Amino acid sequence: MKNYIRRHPWKIIEEGFDATVQRVSESLFSIGNGQMGQRANAEETYSGESLTGTYLAGVYYPDKTRVGWWKNGYPEYFAKVLNSPRWSALEVEVNGHTLDLAKTKPTNFRRELDMQHGLLTREFEVSCGNVMLQIRSLRICHMEFKELGLLSYAIQVLEGEGTIDIRSLVDGDVTNEDSNYGERFWHQYSSSASEEFATLSCQTKKTAFEAHYTVTTDCTQNAVPLTGAPLTEDMKAGHRFLTTVRTGDQILIEKRCIVLTSFAHPHEKLPALAKLRLAALQRFEFDLLCEEHCQNWQRKWKESDIEIQGDIAAQQGIRFNVFQLHQTYHGLDPRLNIGPKGFTGEKYGGSTYWDTEAYCLPFYLATAAPEVALNLLTYRYRHLEKAIENAVKLGIDHGAALYPMVTMNGEECHNEWEITFEEIHRNGAIAYAIYDYTRWTGDSSYRDEKGIFVLIAISRFWAQRVHFSSRREAYVMHGVTGPNEYENNVNNNWYTNYIAAWCLRYTIKTLEKLQLGAPKHYQTVLKQTALKPGEVALWQDIMDKIVLPTDPALGIFVQHDGFLEKELIPASTLPAEETPLHEHWSWDRILRSCYIKQADVLQGLYFFEEQFTPQQISSNFGFYEPLTVHESSLSPCVHAVLACSINRMDKAYEMYLRTARLDLDDYNNDTRDGLHITSMAGTWLSIIKGFAGLRIRNDILSLRPRCPQQWHGFAFAIRFRNNMMYFRIDAEKIEIKNDGPPLQVEIDEQTLKLEKSVTYALVP
Amino acid sequence: MKNYIRRHPWKIIEEGFDATVQRVSESLFSIGNGQMGQRANAEETYSGESLTGTYLAGVYYPDKTRVGWWKNGYPEYFAKVLNSPRWSALEVEVNGHTLDLAKTKPTNFRRELDMQHGLLTREFEVSCGNVMLQIRSLRICHMEFKELGLLSYAIQVLEGEGTIDIRSLVDGDVTNEDSNYGERFWHQYSSSASEEFATLSCQTKKTAFEAHYTVTTDCTQNAVPLTGAPLTEDMKAGHRFLTTVRTGDQILIEKRCIVLTSFAHPHEKLPALAKLRLAALQRFEFDLLCEEHCQNWQRKWKESDIEIQGDIAAQQGIRFNVFQLHQTYHGLDPRLNIGPKGFTGEKYGGSTYWDTEAYCLPFYLATAAPEVALNLLTYRYRHLEKAIENAVKLGIDHGAALYPMVTMNGEECHNEWEITFEEIHRNGAIAYAIYDYTRWTGDSSYRDEKGIFVLIAISRFWAQRVHFSSRREAYVMHGVTGPNEYENNVNNNWYTNYIAAWCLRYTIKTLEKLQLGAPKHYQTVLKQTALKPGEVALWQDIMDKIVLPTDPALGIFVQHDGFLEKELIPASTLPAEETPLHEHWSWDRILRSCYIKQADVLQGLYFFEEQFTPQQISSNFGFYEPLTVHESSLSPCVHAVLACSINRMDKAYEMYLRTARLDLDDYNNDTRDGLHITSMAGTWLSIIKGFAGLRIRNDILSLRPRCPQQWHGFAFAIRFRNNMMYFRIDAEKIEIKNDGPPLQVEIDEQTLKLEKSVTYALVP
Repeated sequence: MKNYIRRHPWKIIEEGFDATVQRVSESLFSIGNGQMGQRANAEETYSGESLTGTYLAGVYYPDKTRVGWWKNGYPEYFAKVLNSPRWSALEVEVNGHTLDLAKTKPTNFRRELDMQHGLLTREFEVSCGNVMLQIRSLRICHMEFKELGLLSYAIQVLEGEGTIDIRSLVDGDVTNEDSNYGERFWHQYSSSASEEFATLSCQTKKTAFEAHYTVTTDCTQNAVPLTGAPLTEDMKAGHRFLTTVRTGDQILIEKRCIVLTSFAHPHEKLPALAKLRLAALQRFEFDLLCEEHCQNWQRKWKESDIEIQGDIAAQQGIRFNVFQLHQTYHGLDPRLNIGPKGFTGEKYGGSTYWDTEAYCLPFYLATAAPEVALNLLTYRYRHLEKAIENAVKLGIDHGAALYPMVTMNGEECHNEWEITFEEIHRNGAIAYAIYDYTRWTGDSSYRDEKGIFVLIAISRFWAQRVHFSSRREAYVMHGVTGPNEYENNVNNNWYTNYIAAWCLRYTIKTLEKLQLGAPKHYQTVLKQTALKPGEVALWQDIMDKIVLPTDPALGIFVQHDGFLEKELIPASTLPAEETPLHEHWSWDRILRSCYIKQADVLQGLYFFEEQFTPQQISSNFGFYEPLTVHESSLSPCVHAVLACSINRMDKAYEMYLRTARLDLDDYNNDTRDGLHITSMAGTWLSIIKGFAGLRIRNDILSLRPRCPQQWHGFAFAIRFRNNMMYFRIDAEKIEIKNDGPPLQVEIDEQTLKLEKSVTYALVP
Repeated sequence: MKNYIRRHPWKIIEEGFDATVQRVSESLFSIGNGQMGQRANAEETYSGESLTGTYLAGVYYPDKTRVGWWKNGYPEYFAKVLNSPRWSALEVEVNGHTLDLAKTKPTNFRRELDMQHGLLTREFEVSCGNVMLQIRSLRICHMEFKELGLLSYAIQVLEGEGTIDIRSLVDGDVTNEDSNYGERFWHQYSSSASEEFATLSCQTKKTAFEAHYTVTTDCTQNAVPLTGAPLTEDMKAGHRFLTTVRTGDQILIEKRCIVLTSFAHPHEKLPALAKLRLAALQRFEFDLLCEEHCQNWQRKWKESDIEIQGDIAAQQGIRFNVFQLHQTYHGLDPRLNIGPKGFTGEKYGGSTYWDTEAYCLPFYLATAAPEVALNLLTYRYRHLEKAIENAVKLGIDHGAALYPMVTMNGEECHNEWEITFEEIHRNGAIAYAIYDYTRWTGDSSYRDEKGIFVLIAISRFWAQRVHFSSRREAYVMHGVTGPNEYENNVNNNWYTNYIAAWCLRYTIKTLEKLQLGAPKHYQTVLKQTALKPGEVALWQDIMDKIVLPTDPALGIFVQHDGFLEKELIPASTLPAEETPLHEHWSWDRILRSCYIKQADVLQGLYFFEEQFTPQQISSNFGFYEPLTVHESSLSPCVHAVLACSINRMDKAYEMYLRTARLDLDDYNNDTRDGLHITSMAGTWLSIIKGFAGLRIRNDILSLRPRCPQQWHGFAFAIRFRNNMMYFRIDAEKIEIKNDGPPLQVEIDEQTLKLEKSVTYALVP
């Protein structure tokens, strides 16, 4: 837990330089544009504790996975998000002394991330080589021109004189923190430098991704241009500026970098394309490029801002989360997805988890153009064949799909059997996303044309993954890991069994709809999938007869067979010095304890709320939440939403607080490794699905608004089908403005017709 | 399954050269002496498929274990048995052509391992550089001088002429097959060469073990000495002999190598010690050194041979196993133990598993001097502090011991949570070994003086590892892996719970004996361990109230909670092309299946046979054996012994066959990676505890002899306390010769007094 970020409704601000939080700040002030991103590493040399990180969308490294014993079906590689050449490097030397804030502490240090305009700035004063300098930098990952990075770096000589040596570089001398034996994953492909521009092209080992950086640096001294000397070294390219300065001198460096990858473009076209982009770029003033970027951000905010009145910490928290989500995923390329750390760290390796479907999809559905969310679905559709191959590797008959737990390109790239082979509920989330998308958009074309193939393959998987137990006279599912990863290899995890049965039901219903509504297409689907009536009959049988462990006395669904045999001791009794458990307890102790990492049974109640009574939700929440340690960042949001639905507003607010400022306050002491990007969508969910109680019920937008008493009110924008809608909620009323055709809206179970705007009084 | 080894009572013979089996032969013809050993790699260059392997006792490399996610409590390293510099290298070039059997196929190829005398020989004819050669080599890891390797290599020129270039080397340019990224684990420490001898000293990275090789090579051409040129290259040292040859010439190379390690001697003394050893060595003729070695082997056989009449395949198999066991462990150093692959391969990394206590100890107890078995116990006693630290890492209070699953020096060095943290029944085997040793030797001094500390620490572990389930009103043990590693993370594994309760009982009984028999020592033990009466009372309570799952209807003990919910389909229905399962099925499928890798419930019935009725053994055997795939080499022997005890002789013989020639016939298709050393003790057990039915009952040697009908008879030697005893058993009778004081012996429940010899008629 930390508390050094200054509160501000639109800005993240660090004032004063504290070496011990620099690595945390590098994460918090990260910038990105969905195509590339980087941690807020200092541009100049920094020899203190730091995690250098520049990341390029889609570019990864297939690390070895063979350690110890090996198990059949394991993936061949563990995909690593790759630390890539750093385009923002700017080394400064004064009178032979390297500017390095780890060596000389700056004064008047201020770092600021202006989320409204997407601007990262830093300013400080520092003595270097007996010269007192003031530095102001501005850095941008351009939102409009997504392959453009911009850096402005101004050096004011406050006092002193001497020579200053500036090296503006693309620096490819980078490694991943978690690489074995410090192995390097890039080698240089080519480099060159002319007076005008410098180029560094690197290739990843094994995957042969190319990253092609073209950089220009304009440098002036007191507004007079300086000529840079071209510079190439091993894994580095750029320009060097050498000059003498004295008190009052002003040096301004403006750096522009075009970053192209062979993931985005054909390898052979990169050099030509870089030149083209550069030529186009040079026509614009630096400030104009910045302006274009800021306008893009302002459009984003118009469609997705959440305003909170009377709680500046909450306001800052939610905007930070929305900002980071937009920085991570732009939705323009169905080959990309949302990594748990986005472009802010290398932890968790691969890019895509079930987080996308379970947590992120609703955010993008409601705050971005429809094709953005659609591309998240298309991503999985494109991976269907690989998911089928993946299931075959596990010994499942061809035609059934097991989507990977972690993936870059559809292949499984995580190698822990208890996760890879067993945390199969992820398949359910992928089916649920189809349902969620269709329900929100009211558009069933994706489901019917593409989704149905995904649904059939997933249903086939479940049908083979269960078996009929003659002892129990029911279908059972052995050897699974539920969302609570603090239990592995359990039998009859309630959540997994429930969502499996739901998938079967949803697939059958979709087939029935097709049969009635599009009989020709229905026949095509049957033919293409070779689906037999016997299969559907089996699905029906499994749906009806799958074990769903319950304990009538406690009035709960049982997490899995044997869970109630544990010692059940509330998490509130855990000594503070032993939490988070995953840092202090052995895995053995965690596994055998009753403590739940994240919503498990409750995840099912969250997804399928309408199928349970408030009493059921209440008793399960009352049983499981006290055993839950919320050590996954994805946990509190689900609890917040459920708590709202059973009117436990204090608990809801407590849960909301844990998610809203998770990174800003470094709640889990791990922000230093990067931000919890996917869980940020959970914060959004806590407000929209939680406090605003927004649902789709019977095809109608429905709200059950409950303003937390800690707030004066809150407001948010969402897209819903053809409408852009603005909501403002406080304790007494809800105001809705509608930009689009009239539509029906349900508030606290009252349906009303919404033209342009409405104000509705809430019953306290 | 392969069948190319010629059958012979005392020899392993390969005739004719087949490149496809060379790697298997390298394993089968391995030589060793408990101090060092090597695979039967060709001395000359071999560019075909091969696993080069030379191994030095106690020398290992701590490989990284961090891949993917990380769990608290994991060990820091995965110990690797280290492929070490090869002292037997001898490169031959004729007229510029390298002798390489992978390039030019030899004729009249014959490889022979004479087990009676411990001699590995090879002969063949081959054309090289247009010269026809006949080669005869002889290789020895000396049994008497355990740091001495000998090689004689004779080259007869059958036809042709030209220059011959011989490089006799210590070759340190070696890697481990399973090293990530082909990493090298050794670096050169020093090398030198004079006319007389050459030295290569290498150090392991990280562990800084030194291996110091001093080699002399005598070379004659037609009995006239040739002078070798000293030779050092990076990681190589030796001598080079260059000469011209013509038809009829005979070149004889005699190579002697002293191999010292810093594991065995202080680092700084290695050079001086090498010179001393060399000087001593030079006083002996090469043939005399060989003779000394052969005599040592003959003494070994006198005390441990098993003779089988009427079944040459069985005869060859059992002698091969006894031979390899003696090659692996000499019992002179309590820091050494028995690796699953001995000196024949690198698989399974670390050296010590519970195999030692559960399978190997009885062999060494009965076939070697008493200090040999005692050193195996002392090994664990010396590791008690580390076992206590290991338990602390898992969150267990200080004073309780969890012995490692795999170890080199007492530290856990295996990193799969389901094994490291969960396969804790190993603790039981370590306690059982104390019981077994005491029972066999009749000497309780180890148990009372050292073992009691091990027993108390193990009991303390069990007492913390169980918890009382109020639902079940019993102690339960969650999250374990039984001996059947085809199930992980199960609850209430019958075997583990049973052996845990047994440990508690045995510890309590031992304490009671001490209290009565040695009250002063008893007080010291209490004081040193700070043992409180409450602890012992708790142990008693756990013993009495631990869950031992049973199914009365089936009349069986249940492997673990939920096992009977599985689909139970006999292993005999598995298609041949899908076995062994671990090669063909995904881990997921294996885990969820009913198939048992090795005895689990039955392991308990084997250890504690006297506590169960024949009916209980019979019904559990009848239930579990058909579900068992015996994919651990440690499985069939336990089944063979149990089958004998319930008079299922056909099943016993079937099981015996699977273990006896496991490697010779390459039953599991993995002999290429090395031999299954620890399971070889299981073959011995099958005969001695199985067919001969040998037990200690009420402190008396007891037999229940059943000669398999496939044999005319069998005979074996064992040491029992002060007696050396020779048994000969056929269908009708048992003859016993006794070299030692008279003693009582029980045969088929009849007690008789044995003076010098007895013949006893068996009831058919």
